[in-house]
Amino acid sequence: MKEIKFSLVYRDMWQASGKYVPRKDQLAKIAPVIIEMGCFARVETNGGASEQVNLLYGENPNEAVRTFTKPFNDAGIQTHMLDRGLNGLRMNPVPADVRELMYKVKKAQGVDITRIFCGLNDVRNIIPSIHYAKAAGMIAQATMCITYSEIHTVEYYVNMSEQLIAAGADEICLKDMAGIGRPEMLGKIVKAIKTAHPETIIQYHGHTGPGFSVASMLEVAKAGVDYLDVAMEPLAWGMVHPDVITIQAMLKDAGFKVPEINMNAYMEARRLTQSFIDDFLGYFIDERNKFMTSLLIGCGLPGGMMGSLMADLKGVHAGINSYLKGANKKELSTDELLVMLFDEVKYIWPKLGNPPLVTPFSQYVKNIALMNVMFLVKGQPRWSMIDKNSWDMILGKAGKLPGTLDPEIIALAEKNKLEFFEGNPQDNYPNELDKFIAEMKELGWDRGKDDEELFEFAMHEKQYRDFKSGEAKKRFEKELEAAIKEKYATSTIELPDLRALKYPNAEPVVSNATGRVIWELDFNEVSVEPVHGKEIKEFDTLCTIQTNYGLEHIGSFCDGRIVGIEKKQGEVVRKGEVLAYIEKK
Amino acid sequence: MKEIKFSLVYRDMWQASGKYVPRKDQLAKIAPVIIEMGCFARVETNGGASEQVNLLYGENPNEAVRTFTKPFNDAGIQTHMLDRGLNGLRMNPVPADVRELMYKVKKAQGVDITRIFCGLNDVRNIIPSIHYAKAAGMIAQATMCITYSEIHTVEYYVNMSEQLIAAGADEICLKDMAGIGRPEMLGKIVKAIKTAHPETIIQYHGHTGPGFSVASMLEVAKAGVDYLDVAMEPLAWGMVHPDVITIQAMLKDAGFKVPEINMNAYMEARRLTQSFIDDFLGYFIDERNKFMTSLLIGCGLPGGMMGSLMADLKGVHAGINSYLKGANKKELSTDELLVMLFDEVKYIWPKLGNPPLVTPFSQYVKNIALMNVMFLVKGQPRWSMIDKNSWDMILGKAGKLPGTLDPEIIALAEKNKLEFFEGNPQDNYPNELDKFIAEMKELGWDRGKDDEELFEFAMHEKQYRDFKSGEAKKRFEKELEAAIKEKYATSTIELPDLRALKYPNAEPVVSNATGRVIWELDFNEVSVEPVHGKEIKEFDTLCTIQTNYGLEHIGSFCDGRIVGIEKKQGEVVRKGEVLAYIEKK
Repeated sequence: MKEIKFSLVYRDMWQASGKYVPRKDQLAKIAPVIIEMGCFARVETNGGASEQVNLLYGENPNEAVRTFTKPFNDAGIQTHMLDRGLNGLRMNPVPADVRELMYKVKKAQGVDITRIFCGLNDVRNIIPSIHYAKAAGMIAQATMCITYSEIHTVEYYVNMSEQLIAAGADEICLKDMAGIGRPEMLGKIVKAIKTAHPETIIQYHGHTGPGFSVASMLEVAKAGVDYLDVAMEPLAWGMVHPDVITIQAMLKDAGFKVPEINMNAYMEARRLTQSFIDDFLGYFIDERNKFMTSLLIGCGLPGGMMGSLMADLKGVHAGINSYLKGANKKELSTDELLVMLFDEVKYIWPKLGNPPLVTPFSQYVKNIALMNVMFLVKGQPRWSMIDKNSWDMILGKAGKLPGTLDPEIIALAEKNKLEFFEGNPQDNYPNELDKFIAEMKELGWDRGKDDEELFEFAMHEKQYRDFKSGEAKKRFEKELEAAIKEKYATSTIELPDLRALKYPNAEPVVSNATGRVIWELDFNEVSVEPVHGKEIKEFDTLCTIQTNYGLEHIGSFCDGRIVGIEKKQGEVVRKGEVLAYIEKK
Repeated sequence: MKEIKFSLVYRDMWQASGKYVPRKDQLAKIAPVIIEMGCFARVETNGGASEQVNLLYGENPNEAVRTFTKPFNDAGIQTHMLDRGLNGLRMNPVPADVRELMYKVKKAQGVDITRIFCGLNDVRNIIPSIHYAKAAGMIAQATMCITYSEIHTVEYYVNMSEQLIAAGADEICLKDMAGIGRPEMLGKIVKAIKTAHPETIIQYHGHTGPGFSVASMLEVAKAGVDYLDVAMEPLAWGMVHPDVITIQAMLKDAGFKVPEINMNAYMEARRLTQSFIDDFLGYFIDERNKFMTSLLIGCGLPGGMMGSLMADLKGVHAGINSYLKGANKKELSTDELLVMLFDEVKYIWPKLGNPPLVTPFSQYVKNIALMNVMFLVKGQPRWSMIDKNSWDMILGKAGKLPGTLDPEIIALAEKNKLEFFEGNPQDNYPNELDKFIAEMKELGWDRGKDDEELFEFAMHEKQYRDFKSGEAKKRFEKELEAAIKEKYATSTIELPDLRALKYPNAEPVVSNATGRVIWELDFNEVSVEPVHGKEIKEFDTLCTIQTNYGLEHIGSFCDGRIVGIEKKQGEVVRKGEVLAYIEKK
């Protein structure tokens, strides 16, 4: 009976939901409960953006990592982190000496496994990290970013895995960051790798956004995967990961050996995580990340981008429509614009060499597509504007693109006198540690246990300076205050038209004159409007308008009943305004 | 290449989301767009509760059904409906003559296929409908309600399907109403049926609530299923069904022949459906149905029940806790109570003979579990209270239970002098059509085209009377008004404690006296509170309290900085109240 083990990706659960990760004191609270759940062989404790966001809110990431890994180390549960290969724990390239130091520091901090990826799947950006990690005593899990195209075939991934294993990778991770890997194809990839390398451990990481993930997990399990990344409530599903409960139950029924879940501990961990959300983390969670959407499949964009994408669209929507209106063309709805953008991403993606749509390349492709849509709408050519970061990606400065650039892109680069780069991206970034060591000495800053403060300074220079000066904390406090205010700001509520909702077939009676409305003239009691539902015949007088030139009679246009009175007895109505609604019999 | 066809379950999309279904004019608008999508071989147009809710808001369901089926009939797209076998289109048993008439009417109204189910999987409640449907010229799709237990094995379902096919069923439907069927098991069921009856068409219907559904669809597809039920935005995922985009893409990659989707039409249908939600339907949609949760797996309850279940729990929560407090026991959180309820459902379900948890049996089992939990908490025995409907289910009045009743349940029935029923449930409900025909004649009510008005009267007697009298519409208008008011009511917002969020480690300085707070005495300018962030040393005077007996000095308990001022200069503070917060250095 094949055994499948689970990893709780506690870091990614948070980062696929919102901006921040829990504080050190919160991580200390949840760790023992995660252990008590009894079903996790691994836990993702750090990496990705988590160290950086720790600095951003004024906390020392080194203390947070050590606090979180210790209980798992003691319990014999493996800890793992995510790293971006050439980009380390940041968005731009990192010198080799800083990359090397990272693994020493993380190993000393109690992290067992590092998941090394390159957003372009360029193995030159991954392989040095495999060596650094192993030299530091970590398990090197080399990673393939999953996407779906004519380039990204089973053969492409099998070939990539061969290069990574040949370079010494201990394990292989399939990182399905947008969740658009197709179950059948993922199964084939795992099967092929496992057949060639039965001893190589394979871990699958997917997101639930477009809905394939549970099927994908069953297929990779059948193909021989060893570990599956899972989440748990209240941060499961939506744009995040499947819940461990579902995956465990599915695999158990399918005949796999899987651990049992201590449901009391699950519920306690769920309660604790919710309390962290209620504390401050919830203010930075986009509610849209709780929903799934299949619209992500066509374009392949990761679900975490939908929020910023919709914001972008809203930003340009008014401008596009004002142009269209001026040009006497039909205006576009946000939906139409969204479809155009998705279609444009789909169209340009292969022309741009099929970069896997993962940060930061997903942003670059989206930006180009948005610009193209804007120019095309105005009758101007595609590619009229491409920003510098996107050009760097196109020119090969971040690594080799998986696909082939379209001739029109190459011509465009030549026209702009831009040079292609075919060297190793790392070569452009000389060592920097000595510089940081010297500055720390000068400032009297402690290099920290196992040089961990030196590492943080060198990895996140700006954020570390702001953290040290207290600037980061101040900025975060302002950000939090603004987020809270925004959440609790009384929104301008658009009141629904009750009458229209209730009587969709009613027609308005419009006044043909300006004056005072007289529904009736009752000389004994007070004059009032007709009762709701009053029957009325065609041509009957509905009411009279007292104008400054005399009385105007308003008659009913049909047999029906009055279902809405818009003007009260004695109120002034203007010509053209609605007096009442009548529902035809 | 095996072909898989899709059915858009437009009715269930709405009913799994909320209470009502679109109006006739809305159905007329969306039908041509659904056809234009080009990917549906079938559409679910009516059945389930849709006819009844039409009456409830004052619309004639016969007109709605005819309006919706016509464009599909013309386009060669098959239409299907859901019927509850013995219970027809309502919650309680229907006489045989009314059941028989239903199929004649629905066939005449343009419905091609009827999906016949019994909540207990008792084939005696299904088989007569197979004959009636076929005699009326409809395709009889006999249905098996999917659940997961030691009783509900692959063999159980294969055996059930054999009985249905032997009785003349044209097609078989696997109705996975809670979405808890496990993918592997579902595949085995389909495989077994298809092997024995290659000519029998099989359709799979599932819900996405607990997350298995996409994997389930892949497994049944591999096993030979012919049709899959799908949904589309904005009513896909959550507690509803998978989006057709995801299922199509997954199957295409896995080598199946699937139709293409016209994405422009998809987006237009999405926009239209959203406009129906914005009109009036959204007021009856529970937002919780947009989220998925794996907590439904353990107990097997259908996701659509979570809303009412949480409401039930909240109702009893305070009572249980006030009892526990009085008895000096630890109080329970709602989460703890939820786990207890889920565990209790899990525990009692086999004892109650494993009824598939579908309406109305899901409600009965949940009610018994809730009662048990309440009694157990108070130290009283299980089963202290069982309502009449639940007893009827236990006694066999709705049909034969799939499993075996526990001896303690049988003893309980005997103790209460309740008799078990082993006959055919239909026998208790003699024909009624003559009675309704006579009354319609007397009242001068038209029996309608193809006797459709007679049928509605006989099927939904009370609702039809209220519809005819206008009472239904009035009631609906009140309900709508209340729902709108509730939605737009200014909720009592609990303002978060900004200070506590921003300075989680700050400690309060408490006043030891009642009096006026004096932060400073500035005789030249105005006296004010200290600035935020002001540094303060241990034992320094923070402020002075002017009491009616003299001055009290309040000192700092640590070296730190002031991060919160709770009382202004000159404000009165009571002994024990917080003056300020200090964050320790």
